[in-house]
Amino acid sequence: MKRTTYAGLVDEKLIGEEVVLKGWVQKRRDLGGLIFIDLRDIKGIVQLVFSEEYGEDALKVADQLRGEYVIEVRGKVVARADKEVNDKMRTGKVEVDIVEAKILATAKTPPFYIQDDINVSDDLRLKYRYLDLRRPEMQRSILMRNRIIQAVHSFFDSQEFIDIETPTLTKSTPEGARDYLVPSRVYPGSFYALPQSPQQFKQLLMGAGFDKYYQIARCYRDEDLRGDRQPEFTQIDMEMSFADPEEIQEVTEGLIAKVMKDALGKEVQLPFAKMSWDESMARFGTDQPDVRFGMELKDLSEIMKNVDFKVFSSAVENGGQVKAIAVPGGADLYSRKDLDAFGKYVERFGAKGLAWLKVTDDGFSGPIAKFFGDDAVRDEILAKTEAKVGDLLLFAADNSRVVANTLSYLRVQIAKEQNMIDESKFAFLWIVDWPLFDYDVDLKRYVAAHHPFTMPNEEDLHYLMNADEDPHKAYAQSYDIILNGLELGGGSIRIHRRDIQEKMFEALGFTKESAEAQFGYFLNALDYGFPPHGGLAIGLDRFVRLLADRDNIRDVIAFPKNSKAVEPLTSAPAPVATKQLEDLGIFVADNDEDKK
Amino acid sequence: MKRTTYAGLVDEKLIGEEVVLKGWVQKRRDLGGLIFIDLRDIKGIVQLVFSEEYGEDALKVADQLRGEYVIEVRGKVVARADKEVNDKMRTGKVEVDIVEAKILATAKTPPFYIQDDINVSDDLRLKYRYLDLRRPEMQRSILMRNRIIQAVHSFFDSQEFIDIETPTLTKSTPEGARDYLVPSRVYPGSFYALPQSPQQFKQLLMGAGFDKYYQIARCYRDEDLRGDRQPEFTQIDMEMSFADPEEIQEVTEGLIAKVMKDALGKEVQLPFAKMSWDESMARFGTDQPDVRFGMELKDLSEIMKNVDFKVFSSAVENGGQVKAIAVPGGADLYSRKDLDAFGKYVERFGAKGLAWLKVTDDGFSGPIAKFFGDDAVRDEILAKTEAKVGDLLLFAADNSRVVANTLSYLRVQIAKEQNMIDESKFAFLWIVDWPLFDYDVDLKRYVAAHHPFTMPNEEDLHYLMNADEDPHKAYAQSYDIILNGLELGGGSIRIHRRDIQEKMFEALGFTKESAEAQFGYFLNALDYGFPPHGGLAIGLDRFVRLLADRDNIRDVIAFPKNSKAVEPLTSAPAPVATKQLEDLGIFVADNDEDKK
Repeated sequence: MKRTTYAGLVDEKLIGEEVVLKGWVQKRRDLGGLIFIDLRDIKGIVQLVFSEEYGEDALKVADQLRGEYVIEVRGKVVARADKEVNDKMRTGKVEVDIVEAKILATAKTPPFYIQDDINVSDDLRLKYRYLDLRRPEMQRSILMRNRIIQAVHSFFDSQEFIDIETPTLTKSTPEGARDYLVPSRVYPGSFYALPQSPQQFKQLLMGAGFDKYYQIARCYRDEDLRGDRQPEFTQIDMEMSFADPEEIQEVTEGLIAKVMKDALGKEVQLPFAKMSWDESMARFGTDQPDVRFGMELKDLSEIMKNVDFKVFSSAVENGGQVKAIAVPGGADLYSRKDLDAFGKYVERFGAKGLAWLKVTDDGFSGPIAKFFGDDAVRDEILAKTEAKVGDLLLFAADNSRVVANTLSYLRVQIAKEQNMIDESKFAFLWIVDWPLFDYDVDLKRYVAAHHPFTMPNEEDLHYLMNADEDPHKAYAQSYDIILNGLELGGGSIRIHRRDIQEKMFEALGFTKESAEAQFGYFLNALDYGFPPHGGLAIGLDRFVRLLADRDNIRDVIAFPKNSKAVEPLTSAPAPVATKQLEDLGIFVADNDEDKK
Repeated sequence: MKRTTYAGLVDEKLIGEEVVLKGWVQKRRDLGGLIFIDLRDIKGIVQLVFSEEYGEDALKVADQLRGEYVIEVRGKVVARADKEVNDKMRTGKVEVDIVEAKILATAKTPPFYIQDDINVSDDLRLKYRYLDLRRPEMQRSILMRNRIIQAVHSFFDSQEFIDIETPTLTKSTPEGARDYLVPSRVYPGSFYALPQSPQQFKQLLMGAGFDKYYQIARCYRDEDLRGDRQPEFTQIDMEMSFADPEEIQEVTEGLIAKVMKDALGKEVQLPFAKMSWDESMARFGTDQPDVRFGMELKDLSEIMKNVDFKVFSSAVENGGQVKAIAVPGGADLYSRKDLDAFGKYVERFGAKGLAWLKVTDDGFSGPIAKFFGDDAVRDEILAKTEAKVGDLLLFAADNSRVVANTLSYLRVQIAKEQNMIDESKFAFLWIVDWPLFDYDVDLKRYVAAHHPFTMPNEEDLHYLMNADEDPHKAYAQSYDIILNGLELGGGSIRIHRRDIQEKMFEALGFTKESAEAQFGYFLNALDYGFPPHGGLAIGLDRFVRLLADRDNIRDVIAFPKNSKAVEPLTSAPAPVATKQLEDLGIFVADNDEDKK
């Protein structure tokens, strides 16, 4: 029997017609001589009715059916009785009287229900991923991912971008995250690396004259996993020759608008807002601001440098800042205990506690209110923070990094707790004009804010090119695209001149030799006429997660790894045969121990 | 200056207009006060004219230009003088008088010319791949690859197939080719493997209910490289639930028709011809027949079993065959020396020389003609082979494998030498009804003709399921798609029942334990209601190579490996830092030697 339509598409237009359906038994109700089966397929669920009247043999088949059996059925579409109509389902006005039925596959009882709200461990879901993926919410996520992928291809093709596949067995570049390595059999002791991004290759493609490149590219990072991270992830990757940042941003906006339209049916307003990195840090304390709500950071350093409260005044004196956010109506929302808990929490950012003031009819209240009795100072604070009676002021006084981290955390945390965020909004925002370098406090050295191939601003080039200037003062032609307070992607104009690229490596602490060893082939390439170029990459997994409204990227990847980088379904990674390692000329440490 | 159009698009419609162009200096001719530059970009080449009259400063810039410099220019499109019109180029009727010019990047002299016919080593081309890719024929190949990729996405999306990404860090399955391994850092001594194909995952997706899946998937095989092989390659991968072979073939034909239309502008005739594997082996001695020409193999075993020529009669007596091909007009085309050379060559297939007869007015001539003096036998041979006076008969007498390999080689080789093949034709052909197993003479055991997940024909199931029958007699629900004598891809209906899958592993020599160890998760999955399903995979690289009419798949891959699996551009694979190996808990053999 050939399927004539999908279970989920059987509706009143088919009443009176015979259909052949194939799918899974979602539910079975036996009313004695009358059996109802909910039949599920990729498009949805329809109700089948088995009775002696419609098909004697079919009824016998129905009698054997259990959940998740795969069946094919032939039957007639009929209208349901009025009182049995379910308006929430496309198929809710009809049912199918089954004439003929056949079991295509039986099924054991699944370890969890095939429905949306299940309460089982992630690893169990991943081990039985083929069952987990049968659940409607998972199917919706994967289908939305497909719609997004189709939109990406269709958009870039319409803009004459060329899909070019770049290698995934390539060279290790220890700058950046840890590489996954692949031992070579032909050259034992040598390794390929899986790429962290197609960065060098897409730049080489610009050098090769391809003008506009894109790829939905698999990328790899061997890092400890948290939140949105996976060992292998997917990137929407693009690059353009002869383009300025505005042109690249315009293309990106077109892409995002197309994706939003095709995946969610939403029109987005173009162009997106832009904000400089400096402004974003000043107003939000982060380069990934969620602009769907206020509570911006206000700089009170000028006011505080002369107050009696030493914590504030000395912070300013020592080159730091005092900033605050005003929580609307916060005076009644948070108890002293709550605020102590916040104070404890923000210690992880280096803050030495949390200072706060409640705004009352009679001025400020709270432990440090006594330092702010002066009406003039109070008025200045209220003016600057725009705080009103009933609001709560939260302060951070420290170096700019601690202040930013503390207040940006509190701002978002409180907004979430107080439902201040309009979750139906998609707030896209460009953060532009980034610093070229970032000081890594753990590594105690400068690293590239984006990556070592980012072009400085024209007017800042001298910082790099003049030996007696500080390259780390340079700002870059780079830009990130933010959605609802999360980085969706980022890009930059790239360095297309060898002399600048060499200075960049130098500023990152490379010697001539180490730059040559790692990136010599790339520096050489720049000798042969590279066009000015730039591009951008968007993290596809996170983008899908946000549009599909899921909490974890694992829910938008068909077969993800767990937080230990394990795939519980196949049990990868796993030990391999000794012969395989011999072929590669490698030993694992334990084997080696055994030999001694 | 913003580019207003592409160099390659400047034509007579733009005469009188000002354009801004950006691209590479292809050629420079200095006529003293008048400089002509051929400017190249992704769309083609246009002639620029620099003179004092049009732009004094621009002329000075032009004076500095060398090949592969990157420039931007502003100028006016003018008509060329009639005698200077080049009708072969889109831009051949015009030139651009340059008002303003700027050098965006200088270039060293490239190691080879940026033009189609260059005679340099493959490794030099790969080392300077960014220059090699600037050559028009390489750009055409990569652009055609893009058109094909776009056609694939567009086709599958239109048919409601779902693009689902499957993992590339997964479990090693030593059945089949050698895996590339990726050491795990979290679990030292454990390894991921890069997938040889998404086979298991796409079947699991059918089990998950996704109904129709496709993916343009990167696959990996660590095998010695020859001809069309690369360590990483790309597969157009698809799978359908509840479909029979005909439906899968119909979808594939639709896909190929769309690709041929979009990439080459060619309409192909659907449906494609089908031939059983048995028939293909009998008529062409291969399962990848090139049907663009005749010279089919004719079975003369019946006739030869009683002839005096022992080589022939004893071959038949011993259960072998005597077959022949008739080369039209071949009597004059090949000398005895040529035929001796063929005889020498086919020894690699196990043949013990090559017997031949020329058909003359007076019967046969040649060393073995004396055995075929009998008119009746001669007439039978001529009738069977349809050979005419002037033709050459080439014989093979041995077991069926040797005969097939010998004659299928000679058939194709001679057809090429004698230009018997219409190279403008695209001959697609399905080879269907394959044996389920293939006896591997090297391994001395049965292997899966396709792979271990292939469903036997319904009527042959008993061979597998009954303990006292020979499973290796079964034929399979599998099919290959052939283009011009090369396998483009292949597929099958898959096993969706655990009992059959277990029998299949058994017939391949797996023990219960080894099957469980390698494929236990997959067998378990089959317990939970898997739909009947099947699919197909097409080798994208070879498909593009054939449509782009290139000799080597390296020419249709942007950054391929050489025959030693090395990427000469980045020098991957390469030694890595000791720290990286320590993190992974592995030693390379040489390091280990050092320690002793």
